[in-house]
Amino acid sequence: MTFPEIDTPAVLVDLDVAEANIDRYQAYCDEHGLKLRPHIKTHKLPSLAKRQIAAGAVGITCQKISEAEAMIAEGGVDDVLLTYNILGAAKLARLRALAERIRLLVVADNAIVVEGLSGAFADAPAPLTVLVECDTGAGRCGVQTPDDAADLAARIDAAPGLRFGGLMTYPPVAGGAAVQDWLETAKTAIEARGIDVPVVSGGGSPDMWAAHDIPAVTEYRIGTYIYNDRSLQARGVCGWDDCALSVLATVVSVPTGDRAVIDAGSKVLTSDLLGLDGHGHVLGRPDIRITVLSEEHGTLHAERIGLTVGDRVRIVPNHACVVANMLDHVTLTRGDRVEGPAPVAARGQVW
Amino acid sequence: MTFPEIDTPAVLVDLDVAEANIDRYQAYCDEHGLKLRPHIKTHKLPSLAKRQIAAGAVGITCQKISEAEAMIAEGGVDDVLLTYNILGAAKLARLRALAERIRLLVVADNAIVVEGLSGAFADAPAPLTVLVECDTGAGRCGVQTPDDAADLAARIDAAPGLRFGGLMTYPPVAGGAAVQDWLETAKTAIEARGIDVPVVSGGGSPDMWAAHDIPAVTEYRIGTYIYNDRSLQARGVCGWDDCALSVLATVVSVPTGDRAVIDAGSKVLTSDLLGLDGHGHVLGRPDIRITVLSEEHGTLHAERIGLTVGDRVRIVPNHACVVANMLDHVTLTRGDRVEGPAPVAARGQVW
Repeated sequence: MTFPEIDTPAVLVDLDVAEANIDRYQAYCDEHGLKLRPHIKTHKLPSLAKRQIAAGAVGITCQKISEAEAMIAEGGVDDVLLTYNILGAAKLARLRALAERIRLLVVADNAIVVEGLSGAFADAPAPLTVLVECDTGAGRCGVQTPDDAADLAARIDAAPGLRFGGLMTYPPVAGGAAVQDWLETAKTAIEARGIDVPVVSGGGSPDMWAAHDIPAVTEYRIGTYIYNDRSLQARGVCGWDDCALSVLATVVSVPTGDRAVIDAGSKVLTSDLLGLDGHGHVLGRPDIRITVLSEEHGTLHAERIGLTVGDRVRIVPNHACVVANMLDHVTLTRGDRVEGPAPVAARGQVW
Repeated sequence: MTFPEIDTPAVLVDLDVAEANIDRYQAYCDEHGLKLRPHIKTHKLPSLAKRQIAAGAVGITCQKISEAEAMIAEGGVDDVLLTYNILGAAKLARLRALAERIRLLVVADNAIVVEGLSGAFADAPAPLTVLVECDTGAGRCGVQTPDDAADLAARIDAAPGLRFGGLMTYPPVAGGAAVQDWLETAKTAIEARGIDVPVVSGGGSPDMWAAHDIPAVTEYRIGTYIYNDRSLQARGVCGWDDCALSVLATVVSVPTGDRAVIDAGSKVLTSDLLGLDGHGHVLGRPDIRITVLSEEHGTLHAERIGLTVGDRVRIVPNHACVVANMLDHVTLTRGDRVEGPAPVAARGQVW
């Protein structure tokens, strides 16, 4: 499977594998009574978003307004959770336009964002649903305590143009019981104020097979699971055969017996390490380490490199989500068959 | 200078600073009798390539055929060195088309690439000029010894459709005397075979102010110097005021007194570290560390973060060349004045 008809470097997406990944995780969520809301930042392809919905997802998750705009443009996607604090007149105007076309939910973790959302939606035909983002240990965005979550929920509930929609967290890997306690405490505190908590949204591919261990969570967001990557393989979440995305590269130089250079560098594979050693896994050659990336070159080392100029290799990257964002097109395949290029919608956009 | 009219995250390029960088290094090369051939992979903007030529550059350097195609599309650039081993029918056909429009030079470090180039140019109206890429210590591509360089030069010289054009290296930082010896030995060996060595091309922004210390080098290729970045500031090559490229970001969350989160993550700043700690320098706030990037969030830490949701920060990234490649447009400025967006030509292309 070196696809002589495809010029390199190319980002390949095997649809057979991606679809199997979609279906397998949908079955897991169905079995555990979890609603699935896939994060499309991984693929940015409307066709795959629709496939995720068709398999049973309740909607999609986006990180940027431009992603949501691109995903709904073709139709077939009409329920979007935007897991980001939206600020500023330009973005708020686009948010308002989006909300008039689809069912839209957003998040907030502070009063300034709530005030902005309320200002933009006070005279809207319908209120905007806002979830409170909670920092349950990951240390990024989010209110810091269950009491803070209840205070912000009450503020949203009272704000003109807004409706409180629930809680949202990106839990730390293996957060387990502490995350469950946090969310239950917050939910109880909010309900004690007479406010309903319709949704508790958790997420993350690394913990995907343990999502049911946090029973407070009603909806699950994951992105990487559709493609998988070396970081998830290293965590035991998937095998190499479950990796739908790979980078096809050509050996352009074999300077020494232990070194080869390929035409995929940091402008395709990216420098994301995610705690790993090296910049990707060469399929079929576990002895090779991708030691250095420059912008358009990747340097491979092995005791005996055994490659010739013109050979092709396929690489499972460390992090699929950022690699899928690097080129204007990915190339869709099914096993050995090439289906053709697909434009990666919404990549390259500011917001 | 927080540019309220620009939505964030945005990649800003201050043309006043970029032009001063162009002129300063051109003056250095003129003083030392070096020909300058800037690498446009940093900016990918035809307007800046033309500005580099107007300042005195002998031509430009590209890493990809698509970069060369984009740079010559508007006219004004007609001399391109493509510092890459070009392989395969699709790329060779585009190379041939390019060579009929401009003065084109390429490189090779092995016989397979030379054979491919010769096959593509054997019936061309004019021969293609090919330089031998030399590994003088950087450990990427390149022939390994001066004798190998001489052998490959002779092979190019004898190949139908090709003309030997000289030597090319990307020297190791602070290579100094060893690189000079390598190149002189190779040059002497090639001339001993009756073959002229018209050009010896060196390069690299980290060593830019020591380029004259390798007298064998006749032409110098540099990319990053036009924008500069945190990696070059850390090496003492430039100051913060010489950094033409910055990322404008908005604070979207201040969860704790020592943490803030901005709307620029790895899909703008990239994960390139270049040996540095953290993911960029917040201008005016040397106490802040950008500790973690997720795809659309950057996490800032400081003992007292002192930022409010909605505040804007400007960040000099670790590596300007990869950041300029992330968005469809950069925003051109001159000091406090916004000139407007410029499409980043040739980004997102496979090759």
